Amino acid sequence: MDENAFGIRDGEVAVELPERYDASLYFIGRIRTPWTERKDCPKNARGSDAVCTIEVDPRWAPALTKVETLSHIIVLYWMDRSRRDLVLQMPRHYGEQFGTFALRSPARPNPIALSVARLLKIDGPKLQVVGLDCLDGTPLLDIKPYFASTDAVPDAEVGWHAARKR
Amino acid sequence: MDENAFGIRDGEVAVELPERYDASLYFIGRIRTPWTERKDCPKNARGSDAVCTIEVDPRWAPALTKVETLSHIIVLYWMDRSRRDLVLQMPRHYGEQFGTFALRSPARPNPIALSVARLLKIDGPKLQVVGLDCLDGTPLLDIKPYFASTDAVPDAEVGWHAARKR
Repeated sequence: MDENAFGIRDGEVAVELPERYDASLYFIGRIRTPWTERKDCPKNARGSDAVCTIEVDPRWAPALTKVETLSHIIVLYWMDRSRRDLVLQMPRHYGEQFGTFALRSPARPNPIALSVARLLKIDGPKLQVVGLDCLDGTPLLDIKPYFASTDAVPDAEVGWHAARKR
Repeated sequence: MDENAFGIRDGEVAVELPERYDASLYFIGRIRTPWTERKDCPKNARGSDAVCTIEVDPRWAPALTKVETLSHIIVLYWMDRSRRDLVLQMPRHYGEQFGTFALRSPARPNPIALSVARLLKIDGPKLQVVGLDCLDGTPLLDIKPYFASTDAVPDAEVGWHAARKR
């Protein structure tokens, strides 16, 4: 097993990582969830109605002004336990190879995860939301307003996924 | 004017940035668009039908396997000319203060932008898409499959925006 939370499975392919990084991130808060082990996390963000809490660092709290008017937010967070060198992956239960960019797996060159969350309440720097699936303590990167006009594509299709259900 | 592409306007508030970064990113490709100056970019990602090209670095090209089955992708990219210290902003034409997290402005602590793009065609490491609004040469951070089941919320509301239209 690798030192990361993921090992490489048969059929998975890793590449050599670039020698240097190109840009850097600030963790701007933490996400509080009921899940402390990966096996307990919901399979995806609609997999649980659990209320999670996003705690924004005091430095950035003024940036929440008018966020209370949003019904849904896009939450970006950092999957800090994921390996970054996989280009082909074998998701458990699927039994075939997928390119990393065809999956929402946390293992990717830049392990930024994205969820659309329903905003229940804001109390100072704390946001109560439904729709997250990450581990307790996950670092927060960004909060954005969700605009149905540009972000909602109800008829979008994931061909490989639809083919599996047929 | 600030050294960044943005100056601070009356009513805008900046904070001191943290002393150090917490995580780092790889640029995994570049986005080719028709726009070389900020003033020419569409106001948002549905503001143009221009075909843009995402060029994935050869190292990561195998990660595109099965991406050709997707109708829409989520594209994350790095707004490398944006200042990162604004918590309150005065968007042009709006004339009032907004918290950074209530806006899709590129100026934010982690200037990661997100667009939902329609995939037209893949040719090796190049993806032709519609739905991007960034400058030519913008660094690519990630490509993800768009799942309508978790990512599409057609009835989401941005209260501050709806109020302006009334």
